[in-house]
Amino acid sequence: MARKRSPMNLSFIVTLMFVVCASNMIVGRGEISWSKDAALEAEAVAAIECSGHGRAYLDGIVLKGHQQVCECNECYTGSDCSKFISDCPANSGSGDPYFLEPFWMKHAASSAVLVSGWHRMSYYYSDGSYISELLVEHIKKLHTLVGNAVTEGKYFVFGGGSTQLLNAAVYALSPDVTSHSPAKVVATPPHYPVYRTQTEYFNARNFSYEGSTSSWINKTDSSSTFIEFVTSPNNPDGKLTKGVLKGDNVKQINDRAYYWPHYTAIPSPVDDDLMIFTISKLTGHAGSRFGWAIIKDKAVYEKMLTYLDMNTMGVSREAQLRALKLFDVVLEGDDGKEIFKFAYSTMRHRWTKLKETISKSKRFSLQKLSSQYCTFFQRERELSPAYAWLKCEREEDKNCYEILEAAGINGRAGSVYSADNHYVRLSLIRSKDDFDILINKLKTLVAKQ
Amino acid sequence: MARKRSPMNLSFIVTLMFVVCASNMIVGRGEISWSKDAALEAEAVAAIECSGHGRAYLDGIVLKGHQQVCECNECYTGSDCSKFISDCPANSGSGDPYFLEPFWMKHAASSAVLVSGWHRMSYYYSDGSYISELLVEHIKKLHTLVGNAVTEGKYFVFGGGSTQLLNAAVYALSPDVTSHSPAKVVATPPHYPVYRTQTEYFNARNFSYEGSTSSWINKTDSSSTFIEFVTSPNNPDGKLTKGVLKGDNVKQINDRAYYWPHYTAIPSPVDDDLMIFTISKLTGHAGSRFGWAIIKDKAVYEKMLTYLDMNTMGVSREAQLRALKLFDVVLEGDDGKEIFKFAYSTMRHRWTKLKETISKSKRFSLQKLSSQYCTFFQRERELSPAYAWLKCEREEDKNCYEILEAAGINGRAGSVYSADNHYVRLSLIRSKDDFDILINKLKTLVAKQ
Repeated sequence: MARKRSPMNLSFIVTLMFVVCASNMIVGRGEISWSKDAALEAEAVAAIECSGHGRAYLDGIVLKGHQQVCECNECYTGSDCSKFISDCPANSGSGDPYFLEPFWMKHAASSAVLVSGWHRMSYYYSDGSYISELLVEHIKKLHTLVGNAVTEGKYFVFGGGSTQLLNAAVYALSPDVTSHSPAKVVATPPHYPVYRTQTEYFNARNFSYEGSTSSWINKTDSSSTFIEFVTSPNNPDGKLTKGVLKGDNVKQINDRAYYWPHYTAIPSPVDDDLMIFTISKLTGHAGSRFGWAIIKDKAVYEKMLTYLDMNTMGVSREAQLRALKLFDVVLEGDDGKEIFKFAYSTMRHRWTKLKETISKSKRFSLQKLSSQYCTFFQRERELSPAYAWLKCEREEDKNCYEILEAAGINGRAGSVYSADNHYVRLSLIRSKDDFDILINKLKTLVAKQ
Repeated sequence: MARKRSPMNLSFIVTLMFVVCASNMIVGRGEISWSKDAALEAEAVAAIECSGHGRAYLDGIVLKGHQQVCECNECYTGSDCSKFISDCPANSGSGDPYFLEPFWMKHAASSAVLVSGWHRMSYYYSDGSYISELLVEHIKKLHTLVGNAVTEGKYFVFGGGSTQLLNAAVYALSPDVTSHSPAKVVATPPHYPVYRTQTEYFNARNFSYEGSTSSWINKTDSSSTFIEFVTSPNNPDGKLTKGVLKGDNVKQINDRAYYWPHYTAIPSPVDDDLMIFTISKLTGHAGSRFGWAIIKDKAVYEKMLTYLDMNTMGVSREAQLRALKLFDVVLEGDDGKEIFKFAYSTMRHRWTKLKETISKSKRFSLQKLSSQYCTFFQRERELSPAYAWLKCEREEDKNCYEILEAAGINGRAGSVYSADNHYVRLSLIRSKDDFDILINKLKTLVAKQ
């Protein structure tokens, strides 16, 4: 007869299991205490189902008795963003960098940051500045890793996006107005409109916007300071450019927002006297309002610090903490290459589809950009700019924007970039949904020719 | 004979306990997933022991092989901030609102916020603006609860601290310069220096800083716009003030940074055409760079939106999310009174000690402020301003700043506030350590008379 298992042995085992369980509970519960509610709240919002065509946020609108609403991608609607609006135009205007969102959702654990209620309440960091020393170090590491900018011996200033730093640079490079004539600020079309609109808006006696750079070639008389905006890669057309004007009285502001492997080959690290970058086009966090200037000259650096002090007393400490965490992830993944592989792969795929579609048409053309050797990917590669600079080739198509608008594509007219209206800028860095709708509309338009 | 407890009953109980424990484990472990690392990291930093005279931050400097350093209060040092530097001067200069830090440490659980890697990457909220609708609603609720400002039918603009909004308001209220003379910007001494330094710094053709308000009384000819800064309670002396100039061409910018029960009685809700508040002096989060303007006129509101667009494309989404969480806590505690009771209690205690100390001296005096009825606390109360506006009474003590400096007290000279140097501003809103050192130094100084 088989020996019947004694009730005493079984209950000993169960008791042991209970003791182990209870100990784990105590230890596990001891791990997270005061931060638990915040963590649960964030995870609950992240779990809200928006059918892959939107997402909910902690600070989203909450409908009575419900949870935060799904904020849907363009052309999607419904409480879970699952309903596609069939006749909805493609949003190809703004450079909202949603194409990077999937990367961050994939790296949820490493990219989250918990901000305590007492985090950095002071106006100042411990060195008395508005600038996180640790974040400066991270940025230097990143530029070294990517090999896109020389940072050795240079000074760093943070700003609310590159937006704030552009104007800070104009003020910093302009002479003292009581003893000199205003600096002449110029840019080469097609160019980012903010150089002109912002400079004109602030309307300081120190400087004045003087139009297109080319109209000042050989006219840079030494009685004025010239401030030339140089954007490379350029917005809107993605070209790698250089400054045009020559002379000791010519200062350059190098807008390097797009000088990353996402959009361009990296032939060499740039070493300008004043370069401006933004997290918007690197990690995609446009809403954080975080940019940095890398400056050679100490006097210019100090003047830019003064601007930041006078204007906003520096940049939000939360934005700097978040940037630090995002840079952590960028520097870690796959020897720091992961985000660039992801971004370049996405952009390259989009350009392939775009070229395929446009090549079927004689009515439209895209900017031509030669392939180049990239020191980051260590091979020759095509450029993959953030924007298509589409041209309506027919002479009579004088308003390319309207032609596309009629076809359900909302881009930005060439004149916004101080260029001819035969051109339209189409944003290629928005969400997959936005890009898919754009390609479908373009295919339909091209097929009608 | 008593019935012996059957082993079967006991093992049933233990089995039940195990089942409950295991279920809780499964549920508990299922509660927090991807946010766990961020939560643990934040709690680990918060647990770093800084002896109550400092704190560590997530983005603090990390010494090799160690953890984030303790960032010590003034006059404290050592790896855990436990070492007091005996001959160290009192830091009574900046208005760094550390006095509120203990409140937030006490509310650790409710004030923490976990920011996901993909939180608000876009330039825009879902309504296409840079402004969190939910946060506007919270701010309106708070003003209604405190009864310190009328918000009904008004417009809201957010800025990087009130700092950014002050200049935004100057631009918005200035006329179009091509058809009008520049607006004349004035303020009444003693006043916050930024009104002058910022206005002069930006140096726009649209406006010019024209000194003391009183020199323009009865000279507000209608050919110019006048922009008068009105600060109430005033910085540096805490007085409740009103505008001075009259006329249709006179516009006021009402800096209401200190119009909270922490510092003043609330006789009634203010209803100015343009009022500016900052989170710095409400919750103490000066580093967040978050302020709001409440505006009556739609055209002025739109102009301020334009400034924010041109300057920085709005305010960091992280700062807005954090502000939302902090406002949540403010609105919840004790029917929304808790933080005000805490803050007022701290300020009242500090003023009691300060008055006690200074009353023993004929050489020094403090500003006199009458008690008033407060609709928030529903009783008559003394004012408890953020700053002492200390006067050196002796005619020959022309540089009060130096007299205090020699006694180991670093305040700010009266001339910084466009006032006489018989005055010094002493900050009373810093940490308890800062205040205790100040009181000790004052006691020593007074005793020497």
